[in-house]
Amino acid sequence: MPYLLISTQIRLECGPTIVGDSLSDPQLMAKLNAIKCTQMGNKFEEWRTDDCPRIVLDKLDGMGYTVISMTGVGQTCCWTLYKPIDSQ
Amino acid sequence: MPYLLISTQIRLECGPTIVGDSLSDPQLMAKLNAIKCTQMGNKFEEWRTDDCPRIVLDKLDGMGYTVISMTGVGQTCCWTLYKPIDSQ
Amino acid sequence: MPYLLISTQIRLECGPTIVGDSLSDPQLMAKLNAIKCTQMGNKFEEWRTDDCPRIVLDKLDGMGYTVISMTGVGQTCCWTLYKPIDSQ
Amino acid sequence: MPYLLISTQIRLECGPTIVGDSLSDPQLMAKLNAIKCTQMGNKFEEWRTDDCPRIVLDKLDGMGYTVISMTGVGQTCCWTLYKPIDSQ
Amino acid sequence: MPYLLISTQIRLECGPTIVGDSLSDPQLMAKLNAIKCTQMGNKFEEWRTDDCPRIVLDKLDGMGYTVISMTGVGQTCCWTLYKPIDSQ
Repeated sequence: MPYLLISTQIRLECGPTIVGDSLSDPQLMAKLNAIKCTQMGNKFEEWRTDDCPRIVLDKLDGMGYTVISMTGVGQTCCWTLYKPIDSQ
Repeated sequence: MPYLLISTQIRLECGPTIVGDSLSDPQLMAKLNAIKCTQMGNKFEEWRTDDCPRIVLDKLDGMGYTVISMTGVGQTCCWTLYKPIDSQ
Repeated sequence: MPYLLISTQIRLECGPTIVGDSLSDPQLMAKLNAIKCTQMGNKFEEWRTDDCPRIVLDKLDGMGYTVISMTGVGQTCCWTLYKPIDSQ
Repeated sequence: MPYLLISTQIRLECGPTIVGDSLSDPQLMAKLNAIKCTQMGNKFEEWRTDDCPRIVLDKLDGMGYTVISMTGVGQTCCWTLYKPIDSQ
Repeated sequence: MPYLLISTQIRLECGPTIVGDSLSDPQLMAKLNAIKCTQMGNKFEEWRTDDCPRIVLDKLDGMGYTVISMTGVGQTCCWTLYKPIDSQ
């Protein structure tokens, strides 16, 4: 699982940060202090942590993930991170 | 065909993910579990898979494609991927 | 002219794709099957092709242009491409 | 703390620029002339400087930080910067 | 001053392009045919040229600046450019 997608809403300076989906690696999610939940009205699960995105990016840097690109979609800010599969 | 454009709507944590257009390589589309369809009201075909975008990116990584950039357009999140032609 | 800006509206899976402005290289525009036109209400010219953006990116790859970044501006999706001047 | 997120609202040509959150390094924030504050209605702290984003990017370049990506989220323009941890 | 931020509104195929702020290097601005002005209702100055953004990017390429990333913020399209300080 070389790619990670993380996102936060409206403001960059606070959490929560969404760090995974129903198929994400539970061990990696635990290292990010994330818990699995289903938001009201959603049909899918997500992992969310109270950490702000900068703290999540710093933790992921320590695990070998690099930011490839970032974008805004509506009021959500998203990052694509990558870790080469042979370094996993 | 070195470039791929994939996209998903509103949320990153679930599919469907749109992975191709009318001229996309059918063999590559099959590897992504995508089916060709025409959305109601559209005049063009697209390939869509039920996988969430992170899973699609991971599969494409295994086939040699790299994320160049991502962006949001309205409520859609898009990625441009690239595979050098001489590695195809 | 090392930089190119291309764009498409609303959907990635179909054309037209806008590939140039009034000062773009006509020979390059011809290779992209683009024609010069002025949209109603605009005071400037543009080059547009019926090809979808993925096909345009693939053609430009064959001519040595690389995608640097992509973004959404309103309902338009744009790419910045680059070809080093000494390879031109 | 290899990652930095900075942002400015609406226009690129003037400050303030938001350069940190409640857990940011106070020494780094001081070098950016930033002060810690809580905007009315917010539950979280932020660091803000009167410098425009270009001046902030130039200062951070002198400290070894590189721009990885930029994006717009609503009317806010954001940058992700990175400094390898072993150069800190 | 290793970083430059440039932007244009709504369409990529025409100017004006905003290329600087009140602290930008006047010599560099002159090379871009930009003039310093204050838009009505603004409290800050900006430099603007009639050239479309592609022409500005091409000129900046000749001066050693590279595009790092681009984004849309509202109806504005922005680019971050970089020139290593030791090549200045």
